[in-house]
Amino acid sequence: MPIRLSNLFLRTLREDPAEAEVASHKLLLRAGYIRRAAPGIYTWLPLGLAVKAKIEKVVREEMANAGAQEVFFPALLPREPYEATGRWTEYGDNLFRLQDRKKADYLLAPTHEEMFTLLVKDLYSSYKDLPVALFQIQNKYRDEARPRAGLLRGREFVMKDAYSFDVTDEGLDKAYQAQRDAYERIFTRLGVEYVIVRADAGAMGGSASEEFLSPSAIGEDTFVRSPGGYAANVEAVATVPPASVAIEGQAAAHKVSTPKTTGIKPLVALANANPDLKRADGREWQASDTLKHVVLALTSPTGKRELVVVAVPGDREVEPKRAEAAFSPNEVEPAGDADFAKHPELVKGYIGPVALAADGSTSAVLGTKSTSGIRYLVDPRVVEGSNWITGANEADTHLFSVVAGRDFVADGFVDLAEVKAGDEAPDGSGPLELARGIEIGHVFKLGRKYAEALELKVLDENGKLVTVTMGSYGIGVTRILAVLAEANHDDKGLIWPAAVSPADVYIVAAGKDDEVYEAAEKLAAEFEAAGKSVILDDRAKVSPGVKFGDAELIGVPKIVIVGKGLANGEVDIWNRATGERRPVKVESALQEL
Amino acid sequence: MPIRLSNLFLRTLREDPAEAEVASHKLLLRAGYIRRAAPGIYTWLPLGLAVKAKIEKVVREEMANAGAQEVFFPALLPREPYEATGRWTEYGDNLFRLQDRKKADYLLAPTHEEMFTLLVKDLYSSYKDLPVALFQIQNKYRDEARPRAGLLRGREFVMKDAYSFDVTDEGLDKAYQAQRDAYERIFTRLGVEYVIVRADAGAMGGSASEEFLSPSAIGEDTFVRSPGGYAANVEAVATVPPASVAIEGQAAAHKVSTPKTTGIKPLVALANANPDLKRADGREWQASDTLKHVVLALTSPTGKRELVVVAVPGDREVEPKRAEAAFSPNEVEPAGDADFAKHPELVKGYIGPVALAADGSTSAVLGTKSTSGIRYLVDPRVVEGSNWITGANEADTHLFSVVAGRDFVADGFVDLAEVKAGDEAPDGSGPLELARGIEIGHVFKLGRKYAEALELKVLDENGKLVTVTMGSYGIGVTRILAVLAEANHDDKGLIWPAAVSPADVYIVAAGKDDEVYEAAEKLAAEFEAAGKSVILDDRAKVSPGVKFGDAELIGVPKIVIVGKGLANGEVDIWNRATGERRPVKVESALQEL
Repeated sequence: MPIRLSNLFLRTLREDPAEAEVASHKLLLRAGYIRRAAPGIYTWLPLGLAVKAKIEKVVREEMANAGAQEVFFPALLPREPYEATGRWTEYGDNLFRLQDRKKADYLLAPTHEEMFTLLVKDLYSSYKDLPVALFQIQNKYRDEARPRAGLLRGREFVMKDAYSFDVTDEGLDKAYQAQRDAYERIFTRLGVEYVIVRADAGAMGGSASEEFLSPSAIGEDTFVRSPGGYAANVEAVATVPPASVAIEGQAAAHKVSTPKTTGIKPLVALANANPDLKRADGREWQASDTLKHVVLALTSPTGKRELVVVAVPGDREVEPKRAEAAFSPNEVEPAGDADFAKHPELVKGYIGPVALAADGSTSAVLGTKSTSGIRYLVDPRVVEGSNWITGANEADTHLFSVVAGRDFVADGFVDLAEVKAGDEAPDGSGPLELARGIEIGHVFKLGRKYAEALELKVLDENGKLVTVTMGSYGIGVTRILAVLAEANHDDKGLIWPAAVSPADVYIVAAGKDDEVYEAAEKLAAEFEAAGKSVILDDRAKVSPGVKFGDAELIGVPKIVIVGKGLANGEVDIWNRATGERRPVKVESALQEL
Repeated sequence: MPIRLSNLFLRTLREDPAEAEVASHKLLLRAGYIRRAAPGIYTWLPLGLAVKAKIEKVVREEMANAGAQEVFFPALLPREPYEATGRWTEYGDNLFRLQDRKKADYLLAPTHEEMFTLLVKDLYSSYKDLPVALFQIQNKYRDEARPRAGLLRGREFVMKDAYSFDVTDEGLDKAYQAQRDAYERIFTRLGVEYVIVRADAGAMGGSASEEFLSPSAIGEDTFVRSPGGYAANVEAVATVPPASVAIEGQAAAHKVSTPKTTGIKPLVALANANPDLKRADGREWQASDTLKHVVLALTSPTGKRELVVVAVPGDREVEPKRAEAAFSPNEVEPAGDADFAKHPELVKGYIGPVALAADGSTSAVLGTKSTSGIRYLVDPRVVEGSNWITGANEADTHLFSVVAGRDFVADGFVDLAEVKAGDEAPDGSGPLELARGIEIGHVFKLGRKYAEALELKVLDENGKLVTVTMGSYGIGVTRILAVLAEANHDDKGLIWPAAVSPADVYIVAAGKDDEVYEAAEKLAAEFEAAGKSVILDDRAKVSPGVKFGDAELIGVPKIVIVGKGLANGEVDIWNRATGERRPVKVESALQEL
C-alpha cells in the first residue's frame, strides 16, 4: 500500500524552526522526519523511521556479510562492570547515572565494551570458540555538554557497535580488516562520501585506530590529507620534529627590555625594529622564533586539579581538541585568575622556562624540579639546540637566545599545537591539506585492555589461559541519516540518495478532477506491484503549488506528476536532484523510472 | 545462509540456572535465547533476537492493517509532561528517575501517553486531521519491586504501544474496535492462546477497558469467566449486591461474651455451640454471617498516610490486588502496631462499627464522623437491612444482630473482597469460574484525561475548540515471547509455534562421515532456496546425542536428521512436538516438510 499524504502523520513547516542551526536539522524538522523531545533527544516520525530502517538494513546485511552476529544489550546497566574498567568515573558528566528503588547504581550505556566482554566470557572458554564477532544496533546515551545540529550530536542516538574477539594478534588484524571492508561497503551502498583517517597518533604507519569521516563544512572534526594519501584526524596528526641543532657556538641567553609587549606579534615587531637585535643570518624575526607559554588546568576524572605549562612555537595556537586528546581522560581548560594568584612566579605575558641572574647564570622556573614545581611540556619542535625568544619571568622583559637542552630541559613533549595547511606531512609526501568532516564510523583495535580488566581469558591449544584480544567497530546510524541529509539537499529541501529514500517514487496528483486521482492511484498500484514503494500525494483540497513544494521538501529523488498532461495520456517525471521534468506516456512511466 | 551451530554465538546449558523459577525462563536461558544483565534486565542473544523480530513483524503488519502509523519516541524523557499529568509523582518508586548534567529532571518512560498526546498537539490542529492512530515498538522501563520470571516481569522490556485520536466518542469506538480486532489477529497468528477480559469495574456491559490474558498456571492475574461468556480480570469483577432487607422486625443488637475468640472460625463455632444464640430460621451460623474488619494503611503518591477500615463478610479475605485497584494510586498495606497504638479505640480482634451502651443505645466507632474518625468502607454485600455479627469494640465481646442502616452507616462501599469460584456472575448467567492468566495486551478507552491535562484540542467543523478523545492499546512484545515459551515446552526444551520459531527447519548432521555433512549442507541450501530459513547443526566433533538434545532444547518444530539413513538415500523428519520420527527420501524432504 502506498503511503498516502491524505492520512500520513505529517505536517511540513514553511519556516525554519528557531531551534535548528544547520541545514540537515532544519530540513529534517521542516519535512516532518523528526521532532525535538528534549535537548539532543528526538522523536521519530513515520518518514524518519522509514529512512532509519533503510540505513539499519544495509548495516545489518553488511555485518552479516562480515560474519558478525547480532545481539542486543540493555541500555540500562548496572554500575559494576563500568566500575571494573574505571569508566564509571572516567566518563565524568557525559554519563547518565541513576539509582533504582534499592539505591543500586545504574547507568544509561554510552557504549557497551564491558557488556560484550562479559557476555563472551559468560558463554565461551576455549580458543576453539574463537574468533567471534558480535554487533548490535541500539539506542545509546551520552549527556553531551552541548548537544547540537539535531541528530549530528544528540544525547540519545542509535549506533551500530561491533566487537571482535580473537586469541591472536593476526586474528584481530583479520577481524579489523573484515569490519573495515564492511564499512566501506556500507558507506558506498548508502551513498555517503567518506575518508578514512588515522585516529591514533601512536600508530604512524599502523592501523590500530581509523575513523571514517564524511567531509562536510559543518563537521566538528578537522582532518588532514597529504599528497601521498596519508589522512588523519587532527587530534592524531604527529608533528614531524626537525633535526636537532648543535648547541656549541650559539649566543648566550640575554635579557631584552620589552615594555608592554605581551603578545607574539608586538614582540616580533619590537625585535625587528631594534637594530641591536638583528639576527646573524640576516633574515627577519618571525613568530616561529618565539616560544609561547600557555598555562592549562587539568582536572582528572576523580576531580583532582593540576596545572601544567605547555610551550608551543609563537606562530601556533594550542588546538583545544589536540589538547583534549593529549591529556585525556583529564578535562582541560585555561588556567584562571585563581590559579595565577597561587603562582606569583608566573608573570602573565612574560612566562618562560628560565630566569636569568645578573651573573649570567640561569635557574629553572618551569618543570617539576623547578622553583614553581609546575609540570612543563613542550612542542616536538623544541628539539635539542633549538633557539627561542621566551618570557624572562620578569615584567616587561624577554630572553633572547634561550637554547633547549642548554638553558632548560622540559618534563617531556606534548603534541597539541594547531596543525596548519602546508605543514609537512608525516609520510614525507609534501604539505598537508586541511578539511572538515563528520565522524560516521570508527574501527579500533582495542587489544586486551577490556579483556584484562574483566578477565576474559580462554584456554589455548596447550591448555593455558590466554587473554583475548578485541576490536571495536562503531557506526553512528542516526548520525549517518543527518550526514546524508546535510550532503543531499538544496534550498528547497532534501534530495535523498535512492538507497535511503523513504520511498522509491513520489507521485503527485496535481489537479481537481477525479481522473487525476484515479490515474495517480492506478500508477501507485502499478509501481507497488513492481516492487517499488510509493508516497502518493492524494490530498484533495491542496493546491498543486503546495504539493510541489512538499515534494521538494520531502526529497524522494524520483517524482511523478499526474496533472494536466493526463489529457494527452502523459505524466511528468521529475528528477528532484536536477530539477529536470519531462513528459512520458502514462503506460511507460514505470519503465521510464 | 543457514545459521550454523559450528559458529553460532550460543552455549546451551545442561543444568537449570539457579536464578530461574519458571519453565520459560529456565529454557530461554538454557537454550541460549537470553542472558541476565541485571535484575529484570536481559541481553538478547542471536536466537532470542530472531524470535523477537518475528513477533515484532507480525505486530507491525497488523498495526498497519489497522491503519496505525509507526513512530518512535525517546526512552529518556524530560519530567515536565509527566508532571503536567501528575504521573511523575503517581508512579512512585516504579519510575526510574535521573538528572542530567544541568540537574534537569528526566525519567525512563514506562509508557508514553504524554508524549503521544503532545506530538499530535504539535502537528495537528483541526478535526480534518483526525482520526489518527499511532504506534511504536519500544524499550520501556519500570522499576518493579519484584522483577520475576525472566521476561514475564522485567524492568526493561519491549512494548508495542498505540494510541488513537478522535474528535467523537463514535470515532473512539471505531478506533478501539480496530485495535481490538488487530490484537485478535496478532495473537491468533502468533499462536498465543488468549481470553479477553473486562478490566474496568465501572464498565459493566461496556467495553472501556479490556485485557488480553493468556491462560497460564504461572500467571499473576486471576480472572473469572461465566457460563454466559462474561470474563473479567479479578480486579474488575463487580460484586453482585443482594437485595436490601427490611429493617423492621429484626432483633436488636446485643452483646455476646466471646472470650479469646478473635478469628471467624472459632466465632462461628462458639455461636453454633450456644443454644441461646440459635437462629430463628433454624440454620447454623456461617462465616458469611459475620463481618470482618480489616484496618489498612494507604499511602498516597505524595507520601500522605491514612488509615481506613474495610468490612468484608467473614467468609472472604481482602484480595490484595483488588484492594490495590480499589485504592489506586495509593499504596496499600495492613496497618501496623504503631497505627494501632495511635488508636486505642481499635480493639484488635473485636473491631466493629458500633459500641453498645448499657442502655441499649449505639454509638458509631468507625467512620469519618465517628469517635475514631477513621474512614469506614464496606463490601457491597453490606446492603441496607443486612444483619451481622461484628466486634463490639470491647475485648472478648461481639455484637449479634448488628443491622446495616439501623445500627451503623458506612462512609461508602468498596469492592475488594476475594472473588470465589461459584460466586454469581455479574451477567446473571450462573456461577463464576476462576483461572489464572498472563496479561499480554490491553485495550483501553482513555477518553479525554490526557488530552485535557495537556490541552490537546482541535477546531471542529464550526471552528470551535474541542478536546480530543484517546484510546490506549498496549502489547507486551517480550512478554509474549515468554508466554509462548511457557505454553510451548516439554521437559526436554522449547517447542516454538511455526510463526515465531527462530528458523523454519533445523537440520542435524548426525555422523562422522563427510557425506553426512555434505548432504546436510546440500539440504540446507535447497531449503533456503525454497524460502525456508535453516539452522544447521554442523558441529564436527559433537556426538549425535548432544546434537539431538540441543535440537530439542532449542525447539524448532521441524527437525531433519541426516545420519545413518543416508546410506539408503534417506533422512529422518522429526516432529519436535509429537516426537514422531519418520524416514523420507532425501530428494522428497523439502516436499515432506
